[in-house]
Amino acid sequence: MNEGLTIKKRTISVVVDNCAGVLARVSNLFSRRGFNIDSLAVGTTEKEEFSRITIVVKCDDELLEQIVSQLRKLECVYRVAVLNDDAMVTRELTLIKVNASAENRSSILEIADVFRAKVIDLSPDTITMEVTGTGAKTDAIMTMLSDFGVVEVARTGLVALDRGRSNIYG
Amino acid sequence: MNEGLTIKKRTISVVVDNCAGVLARVSNLFSRRGFNIDSLAVGTTEKEEFSRITIVVKCDDELLEQIVSQLRKLECVYRVAVLNDDAMVTRELTLIKVNASAENRSSILEIADVFRAKVIDLSPDTITMEVTGTGAKTDAIMTMLSDFGVVEVARTGLVALDRGRSNIYG
Repeated sequence: MNEGLTIKKRTISVVVDNCAGVLARVSNLFSRRGFNIDSLAVGTTEKEEFSRITIVVKCDDELLEQIVSQLRKLECVYRVAVLNDDAMVTRELTLIKVNASAENRSSILEIADVFRAKVIDLSPDTITMEVTGTGAKTDAIMTMLSDFGVVEVARTGLVALDRGRSNIYG
Repeated sequence: MNEGLTIKKRTISVVVDNCAGVLARVSNLFSRRGFNIDSLAVGTTEKEEFSRITIVVKCDDELLEQIVSQLRKLECVYRVAVLNDDAMVTRELTLIKVNASAENRSSILEIADVFRAKVIDLSPDTITMEVTGTGAKTDAIMTMLSDFGVVEVARTGLVALDRGRSNIYG
């Protein structure tokens, strides 16, 4: 089988000028072509004039090439890089609010402890925690907490950097 | 002075159906009106059919009302809530890669320790760390690390939840 046609998750980093509407242009590109975004995170960078968008998308090599080439053509896009799965570090942050009574609070805190989640709010009937990790770790703690009833969740989407000195500007 | 006309940071949570192009529609709304987004994070939720978008935007009360009313009119938007600054928990995640030699590695690790940043990659001449906190904490560690030379940064944007039982579905 042709390896290039394998559909898998790809992580794309895009450094953009902070000009008005650049996020709209990037998301329009994906939407117009019907590309399904798995996750998108956008934040400021070490340089005031730039923001960095991290996009995870499921596609094969051919589609990936099209996406990258079209991103490069967009106004205000400064750098585009596809990160190598085997040579990147990747993390996401999730806030999870879960039902908690006096009776089951200890069980929930035990689960939080195992996943090194940090409790950031406590009320008589809820616990809110932050958990940092890869997507798989977040899915695992969500599964464990679902038995208690998850009230609401806010998840950032993945951010990623190359390991070592390699970087998007280099 | 009219309190309502004060321009300040507002945190808006939007729960959307996972239909194609919904992120493009939301970001187009902001771009078309020239609203300046400070931060945007989008991720999956506890419910398979929904994603949650957290947007931080600088505006006064009047503009905020317009934004919320227009978001509510968008296709695929299920819930819109403006979070109360005094009754929310908010976090963001940042990956920072900084220049590090054998000589200054200890100084960098000390700074990481103070900010409870976690080192996730080490190379002969770089350190990459993850730091979780509010925007102000991230800005503070970035300032401390800038002396060593920040190679690159990927930042998620803020996510936020109401404290206690209160939630966007309630």
